Amino acid sequence: MIVSLLTDFGLDDNFVGSIKAAMLNVNPGIQIVDITHNVQPHDIFSAAFLLEGTYKYFPKNTLHVVVVDPGVGAERKIIVVKIKDHMFLAPDNGVLALALKNKTVQKIVEVTNKKFFLSDVSNTFHGRDIFAPVAAHITNGVPLNKLGEEIHFLREFSLPDVSFTDGCINGSVIHIDRFGNIITNIKEEFLKDFSKEIKVKIKDHTIERLSLTYSDVQKNIPLCLVNSFGYLEIAMNCASAKDFFKIENGQNIQVLK
Amino acid sequence: MIVSLLTDFGLDDNFVGSIKAAMLNVNPGIQIVDITHNVQPHDIFSAAFLLEGTYKYFPKNTLHVVVVDPGVGAERKIIVVKIKDHMFLAPDNGVLALALKNKTVQKIVEVTNKKFFLSDVSNTFHGRDIFAPVAAHITNGVPLNKLGEEIHFLREFSLPDVSFTDGCINGSVIHIDRFGNIITNIKEEFLKDFSKEIKVKIKDHTIERLSLTYSDVQKNIPLCLVNSFGYLEIAMNCASAKDFFKIENGQNIQVLK
Amino acid sequence: MIVSLLTDFGLDDNFVGSIKAAMLNVNPGIQIVDITHNVQPHDIFSAAFLLEGTYKYFPKNTLHVVVVDPGVGAERKIIVVKIKDHMFLAPDNGVLALALKNKTVQKIVEVTNKKFFLSDVSNTFHGRDIFAPVAAHITNGVPLNKLGEEIHFLREFSLPDVSFTDGCINGSVIHIDRFGNIITNIKEEFLKDFSKEIKVKIKDHTIERLSLTYSDVQKNIPLCLVNSFGYLEIAMNCASAKDFFKIENGQNIQVLK
Repeated sequence: MIVSLLTDFGLDDNFVGSIKAAMLNVNPGIQIVDITHNVQPHDIFSAAFLLEGTYKYFPKNTLHVVVVDPGVGAERKIIVVKIKDHMFLAPDNGVLALALKNKTVQKIVEVTNKKFFLSDVSNTFHGRDIFAPVAAHITNGVPLNKLGEEIHFLREFSLPDVSFTDGCINGSVIHIDRFGNIITNIKEEFLKDFSKEIKVKIKDHTIERLSLTYSDVQKNIPLCLVNSFGYLEIAMNCASAKDFFKIENGQNIQVLK
Repeated sequence: MIVSLLTDFGLDDNFVGSIKAAMLNVNPGIQIVDITHNVQPHDIFSAAFLLEGTYKYFPKNTLHVVVVDPGVGAERKIIVVKIKDHMFLAPDNGVLALALKNKTVQKIVEVTNKKFFLSDVSNTFHGRDIFAPVAAHITNGVPLNKLGEEIHFLREFSLPDVSFTDGCINGSVIHIDRFGNIITNIKEEFLKDFSKEIKVKIKDHTIERLSLTYSDVQKNIPLCLVNSFGYLEIAMNCASAKDFFKIENGQNIQVLK
Repeated sequence: MIVSLLTDFGLDDNFVGSIKAAMLNVNPGIQIVDITHNVQPHDIFSAAFLLEGTYKYFPKNTLHVVVVDPGVGAERKIIVVKIKDHMFLAPDNGVLALALKNKTVQKIVEVTNKKFFLSDVSNTFHGRDIFAPVAAHITNGVPLNKLGEEIHFLREFSLPDVSFTDGCINGSVIHIDRFGNIITNIKEEFLKDFSKEIKVKIKDHTIERLSLTYSDVQKNIPLCLVNSFGYLEIAMNCASAKDFFKIENGQNIQVLK
């Protein structure tokens, strides 16, 4: 069985190696696939975005384990959520909000049964001591209702919002990738009333056309397009839009007709 | 079957995880091995160098997937190339040039058959939408000629050159590794007419001996040697030659008798 | 069989990919698990610390391969060490010192039999040319005594010390993790004579209580706790203690009653 792993533990320490060790100790046959471990520490929204963009490409019956967990050791639930074709193990802190949007949830279980934890549970590293062995026990076929009680609600989690005024869309930057591409929270479907001659305002700059791909414009020229995850993205051909616009997460973005 | 993966997608986003997901969705039995994902964005030559140094150590019948693809979405072919014992899937942009040098190419196929792509192909992420599923279908035994038409030529690609004048070799820096070791494009075979008392000129510094290993000189002293990939390398024992010489890719290097 | 891999090769070059390739070439059935490859170059002590914290979580019979090897090419032994349930392959440079502390060593073999190396061994990359194929041959069942002669002593290796004077503990910072948490060499057992109202002095700051978890204090407030690896750690809730204290490895830390 395949387990995907998404954390903010980075690759400089032994955190991720310890989690994998503790999984394989319970079920050495698991195939572990990293989504990324370089989520900015404690950035639940970025993790939610990265999970939503990736999980659906995995085979059916993949278990997705998300350990972005600023509340470790404090009062927050650990949950398993089952939808059609996929399962998630995560803290109940909103990190699943985007992946579960418009999905039918078949079951939520609050994980409390210490029988499936490591015998010594530390206060600060539940990734290794709880998430890893519980995930491995699930892949071994332990029924979800042995892990704890079924619950029916997740914690509320509010995402950066998109608003619509006077035929214009107000959104914001939610992620900047390795190439310096600037990803907004404006989804493709919001743009369907706009022609290709939309105007995208970023800081005091306006981009006046929706491109199909990076090479639609000359090198070092800003462009915008709907990216491969379905969001409006501001980019440059062979250069970093982040460096050009000197921009950070949260920056306002406007789309005008 | 083993698939090696070499990209410039980095490990901070969900690109690599998405590619692996899309591969495993077609063939969950693939064993995926990362060469590296930290090629400098769009640096085709560095990718060519890293691939050539690594692919031959893999088991026979490994499929090497290279996604360093600045032309994504524009006119560039995607190709599968078969040589004795190894196969490559890459954009036809020169990234295979060093690996294929002096090798007999058994077959080149231009990948065009959409049947083996994801059903929705984005304009900007062919790694996930084309390369990943095509690679997985190849590991499932799909014959190459089902992927597209056979072709007989790859695009020309010119590498930084080495020249020989008055018994001296003029080369350049092609890669600087994590330890600050400076790797040149001067191959071991070019040095066979030189004694061990060669002079290597780097900026206004001259190194006057070819060492066998880093510890042949005292700590913090510059040295040169033929490295484990068969190239002339300038290094320091337990220190960074890059920091000492303040050097970048492309810098001229001379070898004198 | 599972092989864990801990190196200082980083993920920017093709070093780690080459090591994995050379392992799989001998035994394609190995399951390779990364502990980390981002040990600071040549930092034997940090590697020893990361190995000790991780290896015991792996399944029984895991082979742990450690390539942090500043002496590559010079006189230093390569050794295989067998203890109950685990095996290690590493240079004899102290990197195993913490993992083997208080353990019964069943066997040490000095690896010298070139039959199990790559046919061409470079002077500078024994990770690929010796460690990788030897590890894979071990997983294939080659008996340890075929690899070389049994030896009975490892090299001495002195660790940063903890001292006790006038009821106070003097230790030092040994590792700073991705979150900026500051890890000392003061083990939990040294603290058993102290109440929870211990005073921890770091530079000119004093922390006056041992917390159980990060969220025991308000955000951006320094705290100390026994971390999940059993060491005294200085941290901040949702912030970087490293940035707050502007501290580096080696810094003195005092614990007072």
